[in-house]
Amino acid sequence: MRKKRIITLLTDFGLKDPFVGTMKGVIYSINPDAQIVDLTHEISPQDVFEGAFNLCQAYRFFPAGTIHIAVVDPGVGGERKSLVIDTGKFIFVAPDNGIASLAAGKEHKNPEVFEINNEKYFLKDVSCTFHGRDIFAPVGAFLSKGVKPKKIGPRINEYKKIDIPEIKTEGKRAEASVIHIDKFGNAVTNIDTSLTNSIARLHVKENTIEKISKSYEEGCSGETIAIPGSTGFLEISVNKQNAAEILGIGKGEKIVLDLDQ
Amino acid sequence: MRKKRIITLLTDFGLKDPFVGTMKGVIYSINPDAQIVDLTHEISPQDVFEGAFNLCQAYRFFPAGTIHIAVVDPGVGGERKSLVIDTGKFIFVAPDNGIASLAAGKEHKNPEVFEINNEKYFLKDVSCTFHGRDIFAPVGAFLSKGVKPKKIGPRINEYKKIDIPEIKTEGKRAEASVIHIDKFGNAVTNIDTSLTNSIARLHVKENTIEKISKSYEEGCSGETIAIPGSTGFLEISVNKQNAAEILGIGKGEKIVLDLDQ
Amino acid sequence: MRKKRIITLLTDFGLKDPFVGTMKGVIYSINPDAQIVDLTHEISPQDVFEGAFNLCQAYRFFPAGTIHIAVVDPGVGGERKSLVIDTGKFIFVAPDNGIASLAAGKEHKNPEVFEINNEKYFLKDVSCTFHGRDIFAPVGAFLSKGVKPKKIGPRINEYKKIDIPEIKTEGKRAEASVIHIDKFGNAVTNIDTSLTNSIARLHVKENTIEKISKSYEEGCSGETIAIPGSTGFLEISVNKQNAAEILGIGKGEKIVLDLDQ
Repeated sequence: MRKKRIITLLTDFGLKDPFVGTMKGVIYSINPDAQIVDLTHEISPQDVFEGAFNLCQAYRFFPAGTIHIAVVDPGVGGERKSLVIDTGKFIFVAPDNGIASLAAGKEHKNPEVFEINNEKYFLKDVSCTFHGRDIFAPVGAFLSKGVKPKKIGPRINEYKKIDIPEIKTEGKRAEASVIHIDKFGNAVTNIDTSLTNSIARLHVKENTIEKISKSYEEGCSGETIAIPGSTGFLEISVNKQNAAEILGIGKGEKIVLDLDQ
Repeated sequence: MRKKRIITLLTDFGLKDPFVGTMKGVIYSINPDAQIVDLTHEISPQDVFEGAFNLCQAYRFFPAGTIHIAVVDPGVGGERKSLVIDTGKFIFVAPDNGIASLAAGKEHKNPEVFEINNEKYFLKDVSCTFHGRDIFAPVGAFLSKGVKPKKIGPRINEYKKIDIPEIKTEGKRAEASVIHIDKFGNAVTNIDTSLTNSIARLHVKENTIEKISKSYEEGCSGETIAIPGSTGFLEISVNKQNAAEILGIGKGEKIVLDLDQ
Repeated sequence: MRKKRIITLLTDFGLKDPFVGTMKGVIYSINPDAQIVDLTHEISPQDVFEGAFNLCQAYRFFPAGTIHIAVVDPGVGGERKSLVIDTGKFIFVAPDNGIASLAAGKEHKNPEVFEINNEKYFLKDVSCTFHGRDIFAPVGAFLSKGVKPKKIGPRINEYKKIDIPEIKTEGKRAEASVIHIDKFGNAVTNIDTSLTNSIARLHVKENTIEKISKSYEEGCSGETIAIPGSTGFLEISVNKQNAAEILGIGKGEKIVLDLDQ
């Protein structure tokens, strides 16, 4: 097995403290040939869904064999399990709170899941507050060297799953919602872009959107538009501006759809 | 050709979303031996000049052969072209909005410019909103593997250029301006440090600066000073403090110069 | 000597300007095989203690031979010296303001210290404001290629040291203090976790904490707890919340301890 495997890191640790740098030191100490990539460390503190959603957006653009470590972990030091999830193509290393379940479930209907419990692959002194450094980083590093997931702990069947909230349809009306706000203020919805042909109109607060745009430039400056996002979901944007601020919308905002059929 | 080439990334994507991490996944999927370096991802949203200025500061400190990808791209999905600019020593990959023109023009008077249009070097499904992931990252990655720029698209002559605003001189007076505020609040001007010998005095708002300092420590604490910056331009600073905040100045602020000759 | 050595970077340069990216360009230009890791670049501007504390937390998780470059440098361009500190296992490169002294002193009682003065290992034109780029980055890069510290400058005995403030004990009372606030708002104290057995109670402002918790989950939501931190020091936390904000405490806040013996 090639040792130069990619390990990605997604956390809510931020970049002000040296938490992330320390995890990298641990990884390189175990596997000097690992290739580490930051997905993001600015997940809102303890927001497991936001972590899961972002991981699900990014994971598949990496080469087969990539190990994705995701640590948004409000239960650290408590009784939640820690997992290795193996989809065949990718391996996820994360606490058992659903953060890796969205991506793993998208990649594979029935991935192999292992409970991390073999202390041989941990740092010597495990703290109660920083399992990113003491457990997840070293486990990810050993996996990147070719250690088999089954060596890390026993296979299990039950683990916590998170889902994208579903659209509720009733006749010619449907109710969708905003599930994520990106850095530009675009509001990502739970409307899969494959559904856009069946939408006649969208209503967001007092705004009505009559068509799906193909680029930000299609709308006039300041116009509220709906556009197929790079996430695979429809996004509500305001041309050249921050939609979330201007429209006063955030995660959970309802979007009413008029359907064509 | 050595495959371990450096690819730098400069964007306004921020670090909260996994946009940048995803671009890196795309790059490593194409060229596992690329060496990726972040220049910055905190360019003010859609501020093409700020991106151009920062790229121009940084690009030349990299080894020959480095590929600089710069994506501040308000026109994404619209009709703006995408470019590969080859100066011989460096290659720039960017939208045709001027962002790479300042650096490329500093490096070479007449660089070779190509319009990116060969879809063979794109991701399969190109979104309308994330060409950083779908076009610029893969094109940069293929270039780093030795693909020739002319394979990416046809050579063109016209492309958008951005310039540092010029100083206006009238007799013994000149009018300069602030073109950038750095993270410490230092106000970078458009006064080339080579001109400092001809300056008798600078006027910034109600402040008069009588000499050019050589270090921050030369001034008393809280004193407003002018100092040759690492950017190659004169900077207005306040010793141990944030000049932009204390003086209430921002980009575009006028600076009046009394000249010696 | 293996050329693929790790160089870590810790600065207060932030990530908005391309300062850090430029340092990496300088390093890779000198040693293409260096492995660069960011510890943090978000040290509060010119806060040398915060830099020293964070470096001291992170440095030891890296492999032997790692070169740690730390630049929080209010005296740049002035008369402060620049240092290479060699502990045998690690090399530190930093201005002589104490930033590397906490880590170096923890690692080795009597490390070898050299004053950086051999311009052969600097960039050609040294600015007065950006020694990170012009001196510290190239010196670190040459060290990573195997250049001996003694080639960089003469050995010296005196250099600036910073210490963690000591706890003041008087009979059965002791006075500790908060020395760092992390990104989650946890207040790191100067109470070594090895001392926790001798503590009966802690008083922080109007709060009394009666026991040392083992995990964040042990407390009720909103409860103020004391927990052995991953830093090796006791931390004051509020379960699932930002302790510094909720308790209104910052660096320097006093903590009174009732001792058991």
